[in-house]
Amino acid sequence: MQDVADRFARALVRAAGKPFDEPLDREAKRTLLNVLGLAIGAARHPGVDAIVAAAGDLGGPPLATIPGRIERIDPLGAALATGFAAHVDDFDDTHLATVIHPGAAALAVLVGLTPATAPTGAQALVAFALGCEAQLRAGVAISPEHYDRGWHITGTCGVVGGAVAAALLLELDEVALARALRLATTMTLGHRESFGTMVKAFHPGKAAANGISAALFARAGLDGPAGAFEARGGFGDALSSRFDAEQMLDGIGARWELLANTYKPYPCGIVAHPAIDAALALAPRAGAPVAIARIDVHCHPLVPELMGNPQPTDALEARFSAIHGVAAALCDGRVGLAQYETERVRRDDVRALRAKTALRPDGAIARDEARIELLLADGTRHEEHVLHARGSLARPLTDDELFEKFAGLVEPGLGAAAAPSLAAAVRTLERAPAFAALPAASIPRHAHV
Amino acid sequence: MQDVADRFARALVRAAGKPFDEPLDREAKRTLLNVLGLAIGAARHPGVDAIVAAAGDLGGPPLATIPGRIERIDPLGAALATGFAAHVDDFDDTHLATVIHPGAAALAVLVGLTPATAPTGAQALVAFALGCEAQLRAGVAISPEHYDRGWHITGTCGVVGGAVAAALLLELDEVALARALRLATTMTLGHRESFGTMVKAFHPGKAAANGISAALFARAGLDGPAGAFEARGGFGDALSSRFDAEQMLDGIGARWELLANTYKPYPCGIVAHPAIDAALALAPRAGAPVAIARIDVHCHPLVPELMGNPQPTDALEARFSAIHGVAAALCDGRVGLAQYETERVRRDDVRALRAKTALRPDGAIARDEARIELLLADGTRHEEHVLHARGSLARPLTDDELFEKFAGLVEPGLGAAAAPSLAAAVRTLERAPAFAALPAASIPRHAHV
Repeated sequence: MQDVADRFARALVRAAGKPFDEPLDREAKRTLLNVLGLAIGAARHPGVDAIVAAAGDLGGPPLATIPGRIERIDPLGAALATGFAAHVDDFDDTHLATVIHPGAAALAVLVGLTPATAPTGAQALVAFALGCEAQLRAGVAISPEHYDRGWHITGTCGVVGGAVAAALLLELDEVALARALRLATTMTLGHRESFGTMVKAFHPGKAAANGISAALFARAGLDGPAGAFEARGGFGDALSSRFDAEQMLDGIGARWELLANTYKPYPCGIVAHPAIDAALALAPRAGAPVAIARIDVHCHPLVPELMGNPQPTDALEARFSAIHGVAAALCDGRVGLAQYETERVRRDDVRALRAKTALRPDGAIARDEARIELLLADGTRHEEHVLHARGSLARPLTDDELFEKFAGLVEPGLGAAAAPSLAAAVRTLERAPAFAALPAASIPRHAHV
Repeated sequence: MQDVADRFARALVRAAGKPFDEPLDREAKRTLLNVLGLAIGAARHPGVDAIVAAAGDLGGPPLATIPGRIERIDPLGAALATGFAAHVDDFDDTHLATVIHPGAAALAVLVGLTPATAPTGAQALVAFALGCEAQLRAGVAISPEHYDRGWHITGTCGVVGGAVAAALLLELDEVALARALRLATTMTLGHRESFGTMVKAFHPGKAAANGISAALFARAGLDGPAGAFEARGGFGDALSSRFDAEQMLDGIGARWELLANTYKPYPCGIVAHPAIDAALALAPRAGAPVAIARIDVHCHPLVPELMGNPQPTDALEARFSAIHGVAAALCDGRVGLAQYETERVRRDDVRALRAKTALRPDGAIARDEARIELLLADGTRHEEHVLHARGSLARPLTDDELFEKFAGLVEPGLGAAAAPSLAAAVRTLERAPAFAALPAASIPRHAHV
């Protein structure tokens, strides 16, 4: 009897065998470009240093490169480091319906398994896209109850998608992929309690490593329990109060959740983005921050719930403070990685402005909407109403905006020439004889000297 | 501010620094001997074959031995293989209050980390005992709600104990151990839905591998979220509806949950053990099975609930059939691994006897009690009443019985001389200059040829 894992595996293998249409090809490459930029941009994060150091401790073979770094480490370590780096700035892609950030774990599997499987560019792109899609499919089946229960869905569903990407790189058939999926459901991880700590970024990295393990064990013959997704005590039941198999399985290969992926223009929790848009629009009118008397941010109720910190004290906390994003936008006229560095977060100007800012949750306001009322000390009032945030589905980043973001992430580590050439490599990935050229081109130049 | 992980780490490090008293020393060694025997006994299981094959696929360094096998594989793979083998026969140790089987993950960490850390016998014994104790402490704090929610507590708490064993082998201080514990809480695994499949045994193996990773990452500087055990969305909250920190922390180093560990004399669900005891006592008097007309097993109501299968058809089903255990005891006069092989389960004699056997649940009978009434075809009646099952806390296996079990597990793979020498090595472990001698002596003899 076929269980959900069997049906999921069969549909995914079939979808992997068909050519991608243009919208899917484009969105898969946008997702890949964005997350590759993030992995490179955060490659020197202390957390990545720690993962690389720990990988050496067990004597693993130095087979895999890590985007943005010169070391080679073992495949699972490289997957962990890449998934971590790609997510640690909270600047990666977001599938809004599930709040999954699918790119990090999918890229991490490619990085980890490239040495062992030597995929073509086309194979890697298919594995990446279906690794993302599988995460999103598993996610919609258990959302929103799963996230509401306290699970970090990027970690939990990341293992499922990681197993799919790994299985496709390993060229497993649908029977073995079904085994990998059942095994993956037993290795999910990630509580939301880690938000604001490095462990949040650890989730997609470890999810990728577990996904690779699931695929390798499945190839070697291990299997998980029948009904791993749908049975009592399984994935859906243990991790959520809802599991909708039809929503997970329906139209795979015809309808793509990945087309609803979005890319953040600002490196912080996405629910704060409309307010940051409004603040950026107000900045030229508002003038000097000291002249501001009060800021009222009318926003969706999730903003204070997820990002209510009124006075963050470091880079990580600031990423979960909508008030910091608004204050930084008004102080600096721009919101990028620089506005979330600990030193910037602690400076007096932005601290004073945060103290004048209040979140006003309003159930009538949509998630990608915000309205800011700004009162100056001289009594002047300004108002800005953002109906759809930049980067939302209604107002996605253009390809040019996405490239600009990518270049800003890549240039500090790889130099100015790297961004256009890497972007071109992603754009023509399906024609590349070896995917390995892309991670190789993501190594800092001085490694080649 | 100290969180539960800080307090737990401090208490565990202090307990690790004090000499063990005699009861703790004895129980730690009994736990180790028992689980080492099981790991050796199941070393050739197809699931272990698969784990070993997959470990080779990523080119991991062949550093660690696996008890009962000749291959060397990478440390995390060896931990996974060992934890799997130790648990796969459902014959290992049980802490009855939590239903945790702590020995498998703790032994697996020793096996995985011995090459990198080269512990003395004394260091390994301390790491093993505290790796068990930490699992049990984490378990009592969330029991029984955690298990009732569908989690396999041996997997979830195994990661916590695995991190403790690994941290002690790596000689982390209490600050780094606290980081390892917080990281461990983010990597728990194991749903009860896997019972009756190989994935159940995968849990303590993967728990050990994750525990090792947590300790290595903690040493390299990674940390988990503050309040990882007690905060909303953390270990207690995400995995149970109950978290009692005081029960977890109280009297560590003075009062040992490990003293309440028990060892199964029969490789099947523990609630059937009193009935099997009674049947074994009756066997000499009952004579030939064909002469038996009827068997009535008066037992605790949990026996039919958990092990009510009247006619199992294979090895796994038989492990959850109390009637099979009784019938096999009367047919063979002994109950060991041989009585649970599929071929034995299907033979006519035992099938016929099972058909004459009925469970008679009785609320007045205790869980470790049973009474069997046996009617022969000639009208003779026999009765046996067991007040406390062998292996229960009230009637623990003696050291001699435990050795006999160990020898039965070890001899098929390692030969007759291995059991007494391995048992002596465990008995004097704290005096061994290198723990590595024990895994080395657990390799089949032909590996040395």
